[in-house]
Amino acid sequence: MGAPVVVLVEPQLAENIGMAARAMANFGLSELRLVAPKNGWPKKGVREAASGATHVLDGATVHATVAEAIADLNVLLATTARERGQMKRVLLPDAAMAQAAEGIGRGERIGVMFGRERIGLTNDEVSLADAVVTFPVTDAFPSLNLAQAVLLVGYEWRRAAGLALPRFTGETRSPPATREAMLALFGTLETALAGAGFYPPEKREIIARNMRDMLHRMVLTEQDVRTFRGALRALERKGGRPPP
Amino acid sequence: MGAPVVVLVEPQLAENIGMAARAMANFGLSELRLVAPKNGWPKKGVREAASGATHVLDGATVHATVAEAIADLNVLLATTARERGQMKRVLLPDAAMAQAAEGIGRGERIGVMFGRERIGLTNDEVSLADAVVTFPVTDAFPSLNLAQAVLLVGYEWRRAAGLALPRFTGETRSPPATREAMLALFGTLETALAGAGFYPPEKREIIARNMRDMLHRMVLTEQDVRTFRGALRALERKGGRPPP
Repeated sequence: MGAPVVVLVEPQLAENIGMAARAMANFGLSELRLVAPKNGWPKKGVREAASGATHVLDGATVHATVAEAIADLNVLLATTARERGQMKRVLLPDAAMAQAAEGIGRGERIGVMFGRERIGLTNDEVSLADAVVTFPVTDAFPSLNLAQAVLLVGYEWRRAAGLALPRFTGETRSPPATREAMLALFGTLETALAGAGFYPPEKREIIARNMRDMLHRMVLTEQDVRTFRGALRALERKGGRPPP
Repeated sequence: MGAPVVVLVEPQLAENIGMAARAMANFGLSELRLVAPKNGWPKKGVREAASGATHVLDGATVHATVAEAIADLNVLLATTARERGQMKRVLLPDAAMAQAAEGIGRGERIGVMFGRERIGLTNDEVSLADAVVTFPVTDAFPSLNLAQAVLLVGYEWRRAAGLALPRFTGETRSPPATREAMLALFGTLETALAGAGFYPPEKREIIARNMRDMLHRMVLTEQDVRTFRGALRALERKGGRPPP
């Protein structure tokens, strides 16, 4: 399956380009286009910042103009932090990438364009885009780092493409305990506590019920019940005395 | 409204801590706790990396141990990139922050714990958490930068809290064109094109209908129609000749 192309317009800092490449690789984007990177290309330190995402950097293409970088795209989205007085659709990253996933599913080429570190995209550059993507940052601190913006687009792309799955799940090494095992645990616990004089006689029923509630909330497995009962038996044998 | 606390365990690089603070500020998180930051605190360069999010750094607290840093929290989530052989719930950031928002709504204090740059959290540290948060990165390149991980949690927090709104919307400086205005535009265009000999007579109807479709797809405003008709009249006056 295709994925959106990332277009960085006049990026300046090696670290931001490298971190953007790394963020792309994290979420399965691979096509990076650089428009007139400031102070030339390749940049010193960019590979270190990419932290191993060198396939993205090695495949990056450099373009003299935005027009050249976007020529083959069918849809261009422009990221911007502020209103441009243009009557464009304004999309959050999730909606933007949902539309991108639809377009890519139809075989379209989609690009997402990011501006310069300090000043973003010019109004003329934004006017080349089909729609604007903006990030739901706070009014108090809206300044999003370039690589962070790329990361959010990559993350939402992966979600929109249906690929945002955890890489592992919690282990379940043992099936949930049967009710019989739970009843046996309650019995062991309540007998031990009664023997230890834990319950005032008039409170025994209510305390026992509360402790059964606690144990139910733990959603114990068969193995958990065995561990618990073994621990109780060890405590009973020792009579609560600390080990010698 | 409260927000999750960010706990960084033995973070090393000033840049990552600063960028994490910036990402927190972007999405309205403000409480940062540092457990035994490597090579001391404060770190040289951290304020520059925070790019103005100094309120987060200035409010950061430093703790000798994880136990101290998490003592007052009601719920602790541990971020990890890999399976730990622990039978914990594994949540993606969106589900984790949805649960955090519910808890915070009930007045609970929620923390999200992030590990060291190279090796993450130890299994013992993960065992202190109520659940695990993991990021839906690719198997091919799963190494997520620390500040990027904090950013994704902050972003999903803001979404879960219902605060993820665009800071601006597309301008609509003029109401949608009336159908009368659209019909007038079609008339102006079709008369001009007929006058210019654009239509083969037998194709006039079909071409005109296709062009009406194109114009409808533009969803024009009243102002757009005026601009368009003015442009057509200018072309008619010039007779298509380039300006002298």
